[in-house]
Amino acid sequence: MTIQRYKLIVAYDGSGFHGWQEQRPPDSEPLRTVQGVLRHALVQVMRQPIELTGASRTDTGVHAAGQVAHFDGETRIPTDRVAAAINSRLPDDVEVLRAEVVNPDFDAIRDAKCKEYRYRIWTAPQRPLWRRHFVWHWWTPLNIEAMQDAAARLKGRHDFAGFANADHGRLSTEREILDCRVEQPANSPNEVHVVVSGNGFLYNMVRIIVGTLVEIGRGHWQPDRVDMILAACDRSIAGPTAPPQGLCLQWIRYE
Amino acid sequence: MTIQRYKLIVAYDGSGFHGWQEQRPPDSEPLRTVQGVLRHALVQVMRQPIELTGASRTDTGVHAAGQVAHFDGETRIPTDRVAAAINSRLPDDVEVLRAEVVNPDFDAIRDAKCKEYRYRIWTAPQRPLWRRHFVWHWWTPLNIEAMQDAAARLKGRHDFAGFANADHGRLSTEREILDCRVEQPANSPNEVHVVVSGNGFLYNMVRIIVGTLVEIGRGHWQPDRVDMILAACDRSIAGPTAPPQGLCLQWIRYE
Repeated sequence: MTIQRYKLIVAYDGSGFHGWQEQRPPDSEPLRTVQGVLRHALVQVMRQPIELTGASRTDTGVHAAGQVAHFDGETRIPTDRVAAAINSRLPDDVEVLRAEVVNPDFDAIRDAKCKEYRYRIWTAPQRPLWRRHFVWHWWTPLNIEAMQDAAARLKGRHDFAGFANADHGRLSTEREILDCRVEQPANSPNEVHVVVSGNGFLYNMVRIIVGTLVEIGRGHWQPDRVDMILAACDRSIAGPTAPPQGLCLQWIRYE
Repeated sequence: MTIQRYKLIVAYDGSGFHGWQEQRPPDSEPLRTVQGVLRHALVQVMRQPIELTGASRTDTGVHAAGQVAHFDGETRIPTDRVAAAINSRLPDDVEVLRAEVVNPDFDAIRDAKCKEYRYRIWTAPQRPLWRRHFVWHWWTPLNIEAMQDAAARLKGRHDFAGFANADHGRLSTEREILDCRVEQPANSPNEVHVVVSGNGFLYNMVRIIVGTLVEIGRGHWQPDRVDMILAACDRSIAGPTAPPQGLCLQWIRYE
């Protein structure tokens, strides 16, 4: 056996997790996090200490259909059985979709070229009983055309400081949004989805984009508000941070 | 104001409830039940003690899209605003879909003419991450034609003692199944649904029917096993009781 680097594609329902990142509060039990639960399963399967690096630190309540993580370990389990071995140790709200051996210098964070997020809004007076952990409930109709107009203005390379919370901790706030669109899914006519892909995101950036698009969709602002926020780099003139449960990390693309 | 009888149509996600019926264990806190939560909201809205009668005592984990209940009360709230007033006091996993004033002799249990249940089975090796509270995960494919053949044999008036748990507490075990069919929903190809409607059901009857149909679908038994169980009235030769989370009370019809 030799130590190999594994890449995992992971899906989870964020409802029952305090986000991705392992947390150990000083005076209490460790919080239930995806990284913690997954690392615990990996330790059982690999029978060795494991360090696990995830590409995206999703917040409490945020979901993932395609989070990516890497770790180093050695095992006699054939690579095509590793995902099943890990899943047999995981609770039912997190699943490894794929495990593969990658080059030892693969890094889930550094090598990510593009990520896509999907944000689901439920626009109907009736409450989203069956979907409540996966949507933001907005009671009144939204002007989709105005939201689409605004979304298109976000595409391209901009300074997104106006769409980031102050504690983003990054030196540069310039990012490139490759696509930003607003859709109504045919099979769920009460929902409006905001789909955003880009080469990097600031803290809470997608949720602030969504909060801003909803202000435009409800007619509080015009679509050119987006241009103003981008030009001013002023968080205080953007919309509120949309709640976490509507957000899902869809996929991460690597070279 | 005068006391009026109200009929409610109620939907709930059963995942977080110990079933419909209010329970007060002797030495602990009352369990969280749909009847308890709903009655508590009614007391707040109507500002008087309320007795609430539900048509179907759904078990822990079982869902309802159209439970029916009645209660007596007096209020100045216009009838078309009563549902919204109750919903404003309810948690997000239960919702009153409709409230109407009915004849004072309406009885949600006695007057029910037909009920429909839908049971959802997830048939794929991949776990049903997003649907796990609403389906029974069955890892291998099921023979739908065999299940449809078996389901058709349940239709009509029969003694269903073989499909009831011993503690059903009913004098007669004869019931009429109006429809029993097995479907694959077009928009969710991994699912197989069993839809059963009838004028009355014994305790766990739908879940034992589903457990039996799955034994037939996986090839363990032939469809004529259903005839044997009906003829023998012997619970021990029927299939296991399918787990609760796949079951949903869809609607109840009244005269």
